[in-house]
Amino acid sequence: MKVLGIDPGTGILGFGVVEFTEGKKAKIVTAGVVRTPAHTPLHERLVEIYDGLKEVIAETSPDIVSIEKLFFAQNITTAISVSHARGVAMLVAAQAELPIFEYTPLQIKQTLTGYGRADKKQVQEMVKLHLGLKAIPKPDDAADALATAITHNLMNRAL
Amino acid sequence: MKVLGIDPGTGILGFGVVEFTEGKKAKIVTAGVVRTPAHTPLHERLVEIYDGLKEVIAETSPDIVSIEKLFFAQNITTAISVSHARGVAMLVAAQAELPIFEYTPLQIKQTLTGYGRADKKQVQEMVKLHLGLKAIPKPDDAADALATAITHNLMNRAL
Repeated sequence: MKVLGIDPGTGILGFGVVEFTEGKKAKIVTAGVVRTPAHTPLHERLVEIYDGLKEVIAETSPDIVSIEKLFFAQNITTAISVSHARGVAMLVAAQAELPIFEYTPLQIKQTLTGYGRADKKQVQEMVKLHLGLKAIPKPDDAADALATAITHNLMNRAL
Repeated sequence: MKVLGIDPGTGILGFGVVEFTEGKKAKIVTAGVVRTPAHTPLHERLVEIYDGLKEVIAETSPDIVSIEKLFFAQNITTAISVSHARGVAMLVAAQAELPIFEYTPLQIKQTLTGYGRADKKQVQEMVKLHLGLKAIPKPDDAADALATAITHNLMNRAL
């Protein structure tokens, strides 16, 4: 089963596709970011995100989308901006008829490290270990997207 | 010049197209809402909004999109939800290569009624007058979308 993880954002949106096979180590299929230059108008960013994610889905044929839920306590301006991008990401997934699962940053931290107050670095170390990588994927947003994909697998395996 | 006004929302999104011709009274082309039943998952709503607005643009060929900006002091949960829909609405406009203008609720109230603390009803009365209608368009979201379209015209005429 292939899971597309998404870490939503307007300036930079992370994505990562992971293949999970029963009894085998999880395998990274792809990871990267949709990035737009500073001061790009929001609507142009949304078009880039739409096209970029559509391409990732066309190239990797994921079975499921796992997307990070917003952390409600964050800055409202950031939350509003990220939500525009997140809406477009969910639209692309829904148009591709992929089931969408949502996980909070807390769930992702807890699932990967067993500790809800783990820092970004610890989560990324676990991504590296889970996928048998030599280094933490760069940039951070791609690693976070992979973490979201792995979270979906771990949480559903545990059920 | 035809302006498509949008009042973004997830459960109900208002739209209204107004034609402005130099020296003539503004004319309503169409107005309505994209509405999804309660408890519809967000991603399905976003697909409805995408398809619905695409259809409005295809049928009415607007020249410009005028969309309501979020009022930052509102409830963060509402702001996040509305932003998902707003992101999709901006995407559709950008994909149709239409220029997008944004106005705050305060600008809309002030421009239509001359008074920033006017209530919804007063704004809607002005929409009725501006468009020479016998009644206020229903539902409220459609009237608000028309108000956003008219605001664009009045603000740019005044420049």
